[in-house]
Amino acid sequence: MSYYFSKTLTSTLDNAKEKVVEALKTEGFGVLTEIDIRSTLKKKLDVDFRPYIILGACNPHFAYEALQAEEHIGTMLPCNVIIQEDKNGNIEVSAVDPIASMQAIKNNHLEKVATEVREKLQRVIKSL
Amino acid sequence: MSYYFSKTLTSTLDNAKEKVVEALKTEGFGVLTEIDIRSTLKKKLDVDFRPYIILGACNPHFAYEALQAEEHIGTMLPCNVIIQEDKNGNIEVSAVDPIASMQAIKNNHLEKVATEVREKLQRVIKSL
Repeated sequence: MSYYFSKTLTSTLDNAKEKVVEALKTEGFGVLTEIDIRSTLKKKLDVDFRPYIILGACNPHFAYEALQAEEHIGTMLPCNVIIQEDKNGNIEVSAVDPIASMQAIKNNHLEKVATEVREKLQRVIKSL
Repeated sequence: MSYYFSKTLTSTLDNAKEKVVEALKTEGFGVLTEIDIRSTLKKKLDVDFRPYIILGACNPHFAYEALQAEEHIGTMLPCNVIIQEDKNGNIEVSAVDPIASMQAIKNNHLEKVATEVREKLQRVIKSL
């Protein structure tokens, strides 16, 4: 089982990020957090890493449902969308599959919510 | 299998947060992101939720190892530590178990890294 959905774009990282943020918005997700892995690793370890960004996306309606169904689900929120440069200089965008990341949690209501979020994230990736 | 480690403290949420940040630092984790669920849900949905904070913790050394072992692991980073008020007004701190959240990924090297990170996060929770 794969744990993410991906698409490769011929675009700059900044353009890809703009597209991703817009596509997430269409499906009701806001971006709550952003981590620049490349600059974090440079700063903390002084190593060179490829361009790699982690966006923390949250659809408040579904987050609220998930939090009511499972009080510790915050340990697995928000849903990440990563944007990275591959070996050929293309930009790959990948969204986590919440069904895969929440696999260890046995909760039918949560699974229903995660299935709906998964469909939304799949549509986001497909639309890019 | 549980997917988190918890401890309940008799403290304010702000004091608990200070303690958590300090304990994470001792184990080499910085806090890269912070989400205030209560205020986000109030703002976006106009609903009242209990105090609930998500801290995104990252140990750069282990993050670098994980990213080298598994190029899409950013979909599951950073490691979350949540701080929430329970029904009795106590503060519960919970750290994700990375072995549980990364269960869907078959990668021996990653599993080794996740096991070390799990031990560190267990020590963080124990030390509070």
